[in-house]
Amino acid sequence: MSFSPLIRQLIDALRTLPGVGQKTAQRMALQLLERDRSGGSRLALALTQAMDGVGHCRLCRTLTEDDLCPQCADVRRDDTLLCVVEGPMDVYAVEQTGYRGRYFVLKGHLSPLDGLGPEAIGIPQLMTRIAEQGTFAEVILATNPTVEGEATAHYIAQLLSNKGLIASRIAHGVPLGGELELVDGGTLAHSFSGRRPITL
Amino acid sequence: MSFSPLIRQLIDALRTLPGVGQKTAQRMALQLLERDRSGGSRLALALTQAMDGVGHCRLCRTLTEDDLCPQCADVRRDDTLLCVVEGPMDVYAVEQTGYRGRYFVLKGHLSPLDGLGPEAIGIPQLMTRIAEQGTFAEVILATNPTVEGEATAHYIAQLLSNKGLIASRIAHGVPLGGELELVDGGTLAHSFSGRRPITL
Ligand SMILES: [Zn+2]
Ligand SMILES: [Zn+2]
Repeated sequence: MSFSPLIRQLIDALRTLPGVGQKTAQRMALQLLERDRSGGSRLALALTQAMDGVGHCRLCRTLTEDDLCPQCADVRRDDTLLCVVEGPMDVYAVEQTGYRGRYFVLKGHLSPLDGLGPEAIGIPQLMTRIAEQGTFAEVILATNPTVEGEATAHYIAQLLSNKGLIASRIAHGVPLGGELELVDGGTLAHSFSGRRPITL
Repeated sequence: MSFSPLIRQLIDALRTLPGVGQKTAQRMALQLLERDRSGGSRLALALTQAMDGVGHCRLCRTLTEDDLCPQCADVRRDDTLLCVVEGPMDVYAVEQTGYRGRYFVLKGHLSPLDGLGPEAIGIPQLMTRIAEQGTFAEVILATNPTVEGEATAHYIAQLLSNKGLIASRIAHGVPLGGELELVDGGTLAHSFSGRRPITL
């Protein structure tokens, strides 16, 4: 019972951040209060504006407060390439490789045991996006190199094959069982250049 | 340029938290946006209320939004013992040892090279607090076991000695050069029970 109610409330709220335990939350709360109140207030405002204002891009479904995200709004990008990823963080990772085509952001991967089928992760919207755009010559499946990510890529490749589209899978320069967003940019760039058509 | 302005603003603001770099801030921002908007809004509110509402306890100078902190407001604590620490986090650490006397929280330690003398860290207020309370039989100097913390303890012990008060220093069970708040509770409890009068 050594902290006052408002400080305890702040420590509890900071623990909702990923990777932040009790001790880290205490340090964060007290450091803001003792040394950076304006930083704490700025963070509060940024959180409120983001939580209230950020939705999803109309075309690629990534997080953005605008109708179109920066990648979809950029007219100079390559409209023949579409890269499919599992989440918004992966867009950031793939951008580091120098890729300058378009994106589609799934809501994770297929996970039948959790009841997450094609509809739950946005595969129908992906197919609609591809059909409406009409310019994609190749769809790069950059789901995570995990069992679920592979299965999701394979499922999408099958759907695309039925429509006569080329699907490619990023090369296994990325370590199996890892998360795409944790891979360094160089490795991911290699795995992009080494991508190959999916054989069904 | 892969995140929209509100998301970039949130990532930048999260980096003001201690120990949070660019990649961690990105994960935090996207995880809140994708999975826990209400948690993000709760954090914003907790930050605003704490940054605007938290001041300092009238008696011990620790952080609190009330006139008195929980430790000073508790009438069951021992009014013959005063523990002097360098910051609010140390109050939390000392509480874990089972100590149930009173506290005084300095603003850090003496640091002549940084121009931080006795006034800057609140030593005059400490002496006033001791004089006005009039019940303290022992003052436990629990500043950090660093060169600066030792010097600060020695300086205060000298002032107290001039007034005929007993000053004690927590035993060196705590590792030299470390930070009090990083010491585990057991070690700190040992160092409390092994405290001894300061010989000048
Ligand atoms: Zn978009
Ligand atoms: Zn107090």
